[in-house]
Amino acid sequence: MSTNEPEYFSAYENFALERSPSGVLTVRFHTDGGPAVFTGTTHRDFPRLIEEIAYDRDNTVIVLTGTGDRFMTEIDGPSLGDFTKPMSADVAYVEGRRGIQHLVNLEIPIVAAVNGPVSVHSEYVLLADVIVASDTTVFSDFPHLASGIAPGDGLFVVWEEVLGLNRARHLEITQGSFTAREALDWGAVAEVVPLAQVLPRAQAIAEGMTQRPQLTNRYMAMIFRQRISRRLAEGMVLGFALESLTAANLAYLPPA
Amino acid sequence: MSTNEPEYFSAYENFALERSPSGVLTVRFHTDGGPAVFTGTTHRDFPRLIEEIAYDRDNTVIVLTGTGDRFMTEIDGPSLGDFTKPMSADVAYVEGRRGIQHLVNLEIPIVAAVNGPVSVHSEYVLLADVIVASDTTVFSDFPHLASGIAPGDGLFVVWEEVLGLNRARHLEITQGSFTAREALDWGAVAEVVPLAQVLPRAQAIAEGMTQRPQLTNRYMAMIFRQRISRRLAEGMVLGFALESLTAANLAYLPPA
Amino acid sequence: MSTNEPEYFSAYENFALERSPSGVLTVRFHTDGGPAVFTGTTHRDFPRLIEEIAYDRDNTVIVLTGTGDRFMTEIDGPSLGDFTKPMSADVAYVEGRRGIQHLVNLEIPIVAAVNGPVSVHSEYVLLADVIVASDTTVFSDFPHLASGIAPGDGLFVVWEEVLGLNRARHLEITQGSFTAREALDWGAVAEVVPLAQVLPRAQAIAEGMTQRPQLTNRYMAMIFRQRISRRLAEGMVLGFALESLTAANLAYLPPA
Amino acid sequence: MSTNEPEYFSAYENFALERSPSGVLTVRFHTDGGPAVFTGTTHRDFPRLIEEIAYDRDNTVIVLTGTGDRFMTEIDGPSLGDFTKPMSADVAYVEGRRGIQHLVNLEIPIVAAVNGPVSVHSEYVLLADVIVASDTTVFSDFPHLASGIAPGDGLFVVWEEVLGLNRARHLEITQGSFTAREALDWGAVAEVVPLAQVLPRAQAIAEGMTQRPQLTNRYMAMIFRQRISRRLAEGMVLGFALESLTAANLAYLPPA
Amino acid sequence: MSTNEPEYFSAYENFALERSPSGVLTVRFHTDGGPAVFTGTTHRDFPRLIEEIAYDRDNTVIVLTGTGDRFMTEIDGPSLGDFTKPMSADVAYVEGRRGIQHLVNLEIPIVAAVNGPVSVHSEYVLLADVIVASDTTVFSDFPHLASGIAPGDGLFVVWEEVLGLNRARHLEITQGSFTAREALDWGAVAEVVPLAQVLPRAQAIAEGMTQRPQLTNRYMAMIFRQRISRRLAEGMVLGFALESLTAANLAYLPPA
Amino acid sequence: MSTNEPEYFSAYENFALERSPSGVLTVRFHTDGGPAVFTGTTHRDFPRLIEEIAYDRDNTVIVLTGTGDRFMTEIDGPSLGDFTKPMSADVAYVEGRRGIQHLVNLEIPIVAAVNGPVSVHSEYVLLADVIVASDTTVFSDFPHLASGIAPGDGLFVVWEEVLGLNRARHLEITQGSFTAREALDWGAVAEVVPLAQVLPRAQAIAEGMTQRPQLTNRYMAMIFRQRISRRLAEGMVLGFALESLTAANLAYLPPA
Repeated sequence: MSTNEPEYFSAYENFALERSPSGVLTVRFHTDGGPAVFTGTTHRDFPRLIEEIAYDRDNTVIVLTGTGDRFMTEIDGPSLGDFTKPMSADVAYVEGRRGIQHLVNLEIPIVAAVNGPVSVHSEYVLLADVIVASDTTVFSDFPHLASGIAPGDGLFVVWEEVLGLNRARHLEITQGSFTAREALDWGAVAEVVPLAQVLPRAQAIAEGMTQRPQLTNRYMAMIFRQRISRRLAEGMVLGFALESLTAANLAYLPPA
Repeated sequence: MSTNEPEYFSAYENFALERSPSGVLTVRFHTDGGPAVFTGTTHRDFPRLIEEIAYDRDNTVIVLTGTGDRFMTEIDGPSLGDFTKPMSADVAYVEGRRGIQHLVNLEIPIVAAVNGPVSVHSEYVLLADVIVASDTTVFSDFPHLASGIAPGDGLFVVWEEVLGLNRARHLEITQGSFTAREALDWGAVAEVVPLAQVLPRAQAIAEGMTQRPQLTNRYMAMIFRQRISRRLAEGMVLGFALESLTAANLAYLPPA
Repeated sequence: MSTNEPEYFSAYENFALERSPSGVLTVRFHTDGGPAVFTGTTHRDFPRLIEEIAYDRDNTVIVLTGTGDRFMTEIDGPSLGDFTKPMSADVAYVEGRRGIQHLVNLEIPIVAAVNGPVSVHSEYVLLADVIVASDTTVFSDFPHLASGIAPGDGLFVVWEEVLGLNRARHLEITQGSFTAREALDWGAVAEVVPLAQVLPRAQAIAEGMTQRPQLTNRYMAMIFRQRISRRLAEGMVLGFALESLTAANLAYLPPA
Repeated sequence: MSTNEPEYFSAYENFALERSPSGVLTVRFHTDGGPAVFTGTTHRDFPRLIEEIAYDRDNTVIVLTGTGDRFMTEIDGPSLGDFTKPMSADVAYVEGRRGIQHLVNLEIPIVAAVNGPVSVHSEYVLLADVIVASDTTVFSDFPHLASGIAPGDGLFVVWEEVLGLNRARHLEITQGSFTAREALDWGAVAEVVPLAQVLPRAQAIAEGMTQRPQLTNRYMAMIFRQRISRRLAEGMVLGFALESLTAANLAYLPPA
Repeated sequence: MSTNEPEYFSAYENFALERSPSGVLTVRFHTDGGPAVFTGTTHRDFPRLIEEIAYDRDNTVIVLTGTGDRFMTEIDGPSLGDFTKPMSADVAYVEGRRGIQHLVNLEIPIVAAVNGPVSVHSEYVLLADVIVASDTTVFSDFPHLASGIAPGDGLFVVWEEVLGLNRARHLEITQGSFTAREALDWGAVAEVVPLAQVLPRAQAIAEGMTQRPQLTNRYMAMIFRQRISRRLAEGMVLGFALESLTAANLAYLPPA
Repeated sequence: MSTNEPEYFSAYENFALERSPSGVLTVRFHTDGGPAVFTGTTHRDFPRLIEEIAYDRDNTVIVLTGTGDRFMTEIDGPSLGDFTKPMSADVAYVEGRRGIQHLVNLEIPIVAAVNGPVSVHSEYVLLADVIVASDTTVFSDFPHLASGIAPGDGLFVVWEEVLGLNRARHLEITQGSFTAREALDWGAVAEVVPLAQVLPRAQAIAEGMTQRPQLTNRYMAMIFRQRISRRLAEGMVLGFALESLTAANLAYLPPA
């Protein structure tokens, strides 16, 4: 186990990283130390960070969490660029498919600690192998339809997979939401606990996993993600293209 | 928005079509204005109608419903032809795979208003993007096993997808049924309401969707149906062939 | 219907076979007449037995069950060979993928009678078309992680399919279990009954099925297993390879 | 065999249809009786025509050909609409994927009689089950790159399938072409004959096929097209989306 | 290496087996010691034999060959049963898909020694990893269309894979043939040699392979057959069903 | 177009990068300025470099080439680690699948300039969209079987795709090779030129492509790589696992 902190731990402004002696790496989304606001910077850095984590063999288990009382509920749209121009939307295409694809292909087990509402990129946590959610958590997809564009990033594949096709469709189309408790009933999350216990509980599960051979944990994660990795590869390459077309279309709509 | 009613609105004897100013097209199955009896004519017309709807860009959202107190519970077997002869069964093969495949490939969102029991072709409504069912609705598959043939049309794929593999299998094999309320618990339908509110509620959801850009609605539907479209293509080409073989086999069975 | 008992009925020491006049073949796992202990012999014989059953056209429906008060909870690890050597693990690879693949490709409907706890190869019964479980049944996966190896046989595909991806993952990773009642709620099993009624109920369902044309039952089973057959083929060829690598890795770990 | 000519024989202005007593339907592309110029009308009518052919069981084998000394080398771009607007490009998306998908899913065998150069939609003929090409035939893809858009319709899937991935890629990217003789060497076409013999030879092959049971011919075509049908379904839904994005992008490019 | 000959070496009347000291197993098709005539017995025994070979770890490389001056050119149709009855055709379905699937899933490398014309089940040899063909060899598919039924067994998948889609289609549809030399040009076979050298050359290649670690040879074979194994699984389950329908249809045709 | 050279241009010791004013990025493999020797460093850096290239939108077309009179013929095995230990082989697994997957998913067109023999990782160049090879080029796979391990990296998928299944298998199994001229005949490469013209010709093709809209080039590359990207994802995850098992097995073999 290396003693010095790797360079990438402090290289990305929206991600705080901390590693336990057994190699459990807690990755925390934040903005200036508070709840994360999703920006173009977050979008750009996410796939790069996940690749660095993948290559660092001192990471044994990942804990993915947010800051404060919410996982992620705000987005800075303009910082992501002007999606009505296809060449500009292509930047998000390149980064977006890599973000989720790198995450699902990460050979390291992921435990999510969902610390409250998540209305932006809930697929980040719903993709995790074990999901602990606070009883204050509500899941929804806010940005896509609010911006008038179709939800073509990995969210739709993950929702379809973990909620079922018909739940995923009606919730997205009617801009609905679901609670951690409902997610538990539906099998989408593993445990619901009070907010204060979310991170400790997730870290305890992760530490417990480190008692097993590292390769066993890695290949168990790969085995279970085989199919969803492929579905995401197929789904996102189409989804982003259709999403970008709906964005390009906005330029030709009459003013609302 | 064109002012004259398109020709296909009145071209098919088992389908009543009505379109709202915003382009919501309500497609209602019926027989002589009453509850629909599924016949060879319905089977022949269904894929043709769906293609016409697809090409008409004034259709923004589809509402699919039945007439009276049931969606569809009767079938006129003889009108569908003699399935024991493979060349005759092939007519149903050609039309049947096209009906469901055209429906799932329709780029227009579909809201189902399930107005009561459906024991014939429940996949028509369970394929919809948003499903509103009356509290009187019971889903089952009557015709296949009653006729002694295997259920190889799209129903088995849709049931497997929206109920789960094991629920779909045991319900079909034991000729069971499930209520709208159970379907809601299982995530197969979105809402259960009293019968009188089924159509108004479905139409209200559809009208709400028309507030969004039309292309956004279209591509959201396509995104979410990507996988089931492919599964139906694969599943039906095999399913119909096996179903037809079980029909051809009937000619060689000893009299019951 | 042949009157003499086929040779394979008595050829395999861990399987007791009995066939009713209508061709319902009850296949019972056992060890010396008591609850089954899974051994290298069971592993070797299972794919061979399933192939023999497949070729015998007098078998109309299969009932799969265990002996006594549990389906299977014990395993004799050493009898399966030394998995740390890849050439030795390859024996299990060859037999293991054939066992499950032959089972899912069997053209005969399968009714499972789950007579109590199953912590070894629960995929055998969860793959069945109709599953009747005793109220004493608890499902889990004991051997893989207890031996320090990743679960790469068909179990992971079947759990993912019948429990959902996220339930399957967290239950496996946290070495959890689920009851027959939970399995019923989740749609994984069809019925939960008292232990004494498990086998009679399963056999009654099977006998009921024999009232239909045999080919109809066969092709219904094939239709519903089309997708999971393919997923198992893909999943197991990878899963066993990764599982064997985690076993080979054990030879290089420091003593615990 | 019906004696009256069906209505659809004369319903489409760019298609001349003629049927032999044995049911061989010759479908000839033309513009005012001369070589075909591909227009928005051709694009709109093609999927509709193929569906009508599919439903008419008097059609036993299709012969697909062009008029005069070329199969198709001209296209009227403006008649297809303004692809830089996504809502307008969506019309081509709807029709384009249906045209090729309906063709490959047609249960009737197709013999192509390629009567000279084809630089527009060569996938129409390269998809055929048996391809007879004149020695004057040269295959290329003119319209896509000439218009500055990516080739995302079915052509890329068909070229990849019948030429091989690397040949298809470099020919498209370098805007190259290949002769009937090369296509014969590569296995892409079945026979190369002088122009005058192309149609008679194709029709002779088709007539020969009618000596077999009609269902045998139909299911042989389906069997061989199983995989390419699926690949087209997957490939076109993505390809058209990406092609439309490259068209939408044209509006933002600096003038050349 | 066991010294006694296994029982299965002499259990199947159409297969002569011989194993070299290094474990190269030569499997020779024959009928009474002369060129093989394909019968119901051959069909029944083939999948059973392949399974036995698979379980016998003393087999290192397989050489597949025929007897005399032809690989296989004759078939005893009636011995295969009456395919016009679906329940009877189902026997061939069960055995046929297992024969090819077991062959392609065999973890042992296969070298084919094609000793002359093969017009029956050429997929057996074209599936091999390395194919040596005599210069007298001609490949074709005689039985299917001669019997009026569609070619739905594995042959169509293998021909499509090794000849290319368009070559496979036109050769089958026009009942054509191709020589060993053409197959060499097209990449379908590895070497063409005089008849007398076919078996020695194939055995020499096989012996050469045994110089490598056995597991390396096994997993190389599996790696390269991953995709065609899956395509055969998908293709045959459909193909046999459609083939059986064309057979069932024969009962309803007017006498020729 | 940025004027300063990006940092990654000089960050990787085995890769020399040079970009033309139009954005054509020539990526040249080398070792100390001479022909490249493949090492653990090359393996580690390759996926990282490709990701950096992907994110840099100033890159319009990639030219991939080697140094001197060969593309790559040497490998420093020990520098890659001890593959007999699964945890050590896992490092190569992580990097190896990312290297090829990132390359095939790169949204930038790739032109290969194959400057002579390539016996190590020929899939790097055979994956390119347009391949120019010197007439001195010979393709083979040296390292895998020379080390006694199965070829499970992306090479087998790429060879199967561009040479055909049967050519790929027999060439690999018999450790054969093929020339640029043969590759041209088989459609695997686009052009064969004298060595001195390889790079200029490749760069000229690349410069020609920059006359088109950048997004058109990008999406054309994505469209044509859709299927092989998916096949590589599926094939490599299995292939590397099997390759690693053959390496782990080496520790248990008797000394040669």
